Amino acid sequence: MPDALHLSKGLDDVVIGRSSIAFVGGETGELVYRGFDAPTLARGVPYESVVHLLLFGDPPSADPSPEVTAALRSSADLPPTAARVVDALPPGLPPLDALRTLLSALGDGSHGYPPTREEGLALVARTPILLARYVRRSQGLAPVAPDASLGHAANYLRMLRGAAPEPARVAALEGYLDLLADHGMNASTFNLRIAISTHSDLMSAATGALGTLKGPLHGGAPSRVAEMLDAIGTPERAEPWIADRLARKEVLYGFGHRVYKTDDPRGLALHAIARSIADPERLALAETVERAALAALRAAKPGARLFTNVEFYSAVVLEAVGLPPELFTPTFVVARTAGWAAHALEQAGDNRLIRPEVEYVGPARGRTWPRALPGA
Amino acid sequence: MPDALHLSKGLDDVVIGRSSIAFVGGETGELVYRGFDAPTLARGVPYESVVHLLLFGDPPSADPSPEVTAALRSSADLPPTAARVVDALPPGLPPLDALRTLLSALGDGSHGYPPTREEGLALVARTPILLARYVRRSQGLAPVAPDASLGHAANYLRMLRGAAPEPARVAALEGYLDLLADHGMNASTFNLRIAISTHSDLMSAATGALGTLKGPLHGGAPSRVAEMLDAIGTPERAEPWIADRLARKEVLYGFGHRVYKTDDPRGLALHAIARSIADPERLALAETVERAALAALRAAKPGARLFTNVEFYSAVVLEAVGLPPELFTPTFVVARTAGWAAHALEQAGDNRLIRPEVEYVGPARGRTWPRALPGA
Repeated sequence: MPDALHLSKGLDDVVIGRSSIAFVGGETGELVYRGFDAPTLARGVPYESVVHLLLFGDPPSADPSPEVTAALRSSADLPPTAARVVDALPPGLPPLDALRTLLSALGDGSHGYPPTREEGLALVARTPILLARYVRRSQGLAPVAPDASLGHAANYLRMLRGAAPEPARVAALEGYLDLLADHGMNASTFNLRIAISTHSDLMSAATGALGTLKGPLHGGAPSRVAEMLDAIGTPERAEPWIADRLARKEVLYGFGHRVYKTDDPRGLALHAIARSIADPERLALAETVERAALAALRAAKPGARLFTNVEFYSAVVLEAVGLPPELFTPTFVVARTAGWAAHALEQAGDNRLIRPEVEYVGPARGRTWPRALPGA
Repeated sequence: MPDALHLSKGLDDVVIGRSSIAFVGGETGELVYRGFDAPTLARGVPYESVVHLLLFGDPPSADPSPEVTAALRSSADLPPTAARVVDALPPGLPPLDALRTLLSALGDGSHGYPPTREEGLALVARTPILLARYVRRSQGLAPVAPDASLGHAANYLRMLRGAAPEPARVAALEGYLDLLADHGMNASTFNLRIAISTHSDLMSAATGALGTLKGPLHGGAPSRVAEMLDAIGTPERAEPWIADRLARKEVLYGFGHRVYKTDDPRGLALHAIARSIADPERLALAETVERAALAALRAAKPGARLFTNVEFYSAVVLEAVGLPPELFTPTFVVARTAGWAAHALEQAGDNRLIRPEVEYVGPARGRTWPRALPGA
């Protein structure tokens, strides 16, 4: 291959471009949205205002953002295609698979290029509506429409459960949504920007982004953290369970991150939220498991900078909020739609088709088909 | 940013890794599948055998591949979720949007990581079945099941039209499918490999790939070539129409490619197929438009190496095969499922999470929210 090309399998050392949306400080443990420290925002800024910040670039004139609140309300009715598909999906699918099909169904031919802010806000609005409607349908329950007097986080819980949620749970979920709303050029966002770079539409791109986030190396693992805590059961079993797991070369979910070489700031913030809302026994179990896992992982890989990642306390918080494990990753999607919309707009604003090179290492050219070809 | 990082907005100069699947010779005008010249294969190798070559690495023991033929037949029945969704989608959606939702609906929770060859073959089998069933449903027609006595190309046409297709049309479509089956690390394949790199599943990845291929800078433009030919109407109108279009700074679809700096070998092969099947008047119009467009584009950009791309004669061939323009890009997807499956298997075989860096150029850190935060 020519010298001018740069080989990078995971793109770890490639800067794909410039972005004004989020700064992820892997060495310093920072997450910044357009200049604002995200963990600080998560201490009380409504999700609607974080959506506003990400999509408009500056804070709204009031909290929650009047513009975003109005846009979310105006998207409360589902378009006919998505409404038909959500009611046609068989019950019992993994909610994340159902949600991927439902995001795609929002793409009914009405989306074009470039993506618009209005389309982005409709994506943010409709993701929890579709998800909750499918989940309730799977349980044989009638859908619950969004309540215009409630915010996005409260509505999500109410649409799932049919009852007004407790304020402490709404506050915890709001903090989670704020913290997960964007994370720079992660794999799902990169996937979305590639789709936009071909001049495809926002719903095509968001559907692919969900499909990328689904992988356990990205967003698909928090339910496995809850399963791990369930399997361990009590704090004194943490050490032997973890040792056995590592001896069998199995993964411990909730630890390690491509970018953060220190504590994930979202993990610290979610730990703080967990302290305010989680069942004390469950929290104590999680904290013991965290300590034991970090000690065992660091002993197994001396010198590796291994830390707890965002998924560990995501699981503890979402569980305390009342969500079942199969909704942990879909709830991550609910949060991340804001970031995806912001990145789609930014990509389209200064676009170049994203298409890398690849080095061909297959059989040498000039092979001959073993049988005669009719047209040859 | 540290000196060790490499800035590349479109990844033009970045080699994402090594692949044994296809060689794309941008300077020499070559397309090679695992050592075999693709345009040569397109002169009579059945699509099933090209699928075999891509997925197994070597030619089958006979043509059409017995293994692939058997696998396609065994996937002729649709899984329940996809069958329900195809019959629930409202008629009249753009077929490509419908197909994206249908590929997603194939992902019913039964797909995991790593992807398997069987899953890949089921994707190849079911894409035209779902597409044809949706298209017929939109026309108020009953579905036509695949006929086990016919090959993949013939079945696709038969499932769309309900009647046995003419052999010349089947042969032309088979050539098209062979030529479009893979193309190295194009944007949709790259998008798919990113999803697989997070340990997501094949259907999530293929859904995102379709959403990327949909963009007019990738696969979404051949219908616009047909529209352009329709708008021009007669050969003598080609020159003034093109001059006017360029004067208004509008795009001419069917010309220029990121990689090929010479004739696209697929375009040359499709031109040959078009000569064998297209209506002579339409072919003459296309050839005149091609000459006039290249002359005008080269005059407008002296020194630019601008050539006809694959979409130009794709449009002429698919039209001659009897497909309407809204099925051109979906038919590209039908062909490309083979390459996507091969790349998913290859990515999982030697995986590394694909996640680039990005340079933050937004507002400086340390901004303060304009209102007090309850929890701060």
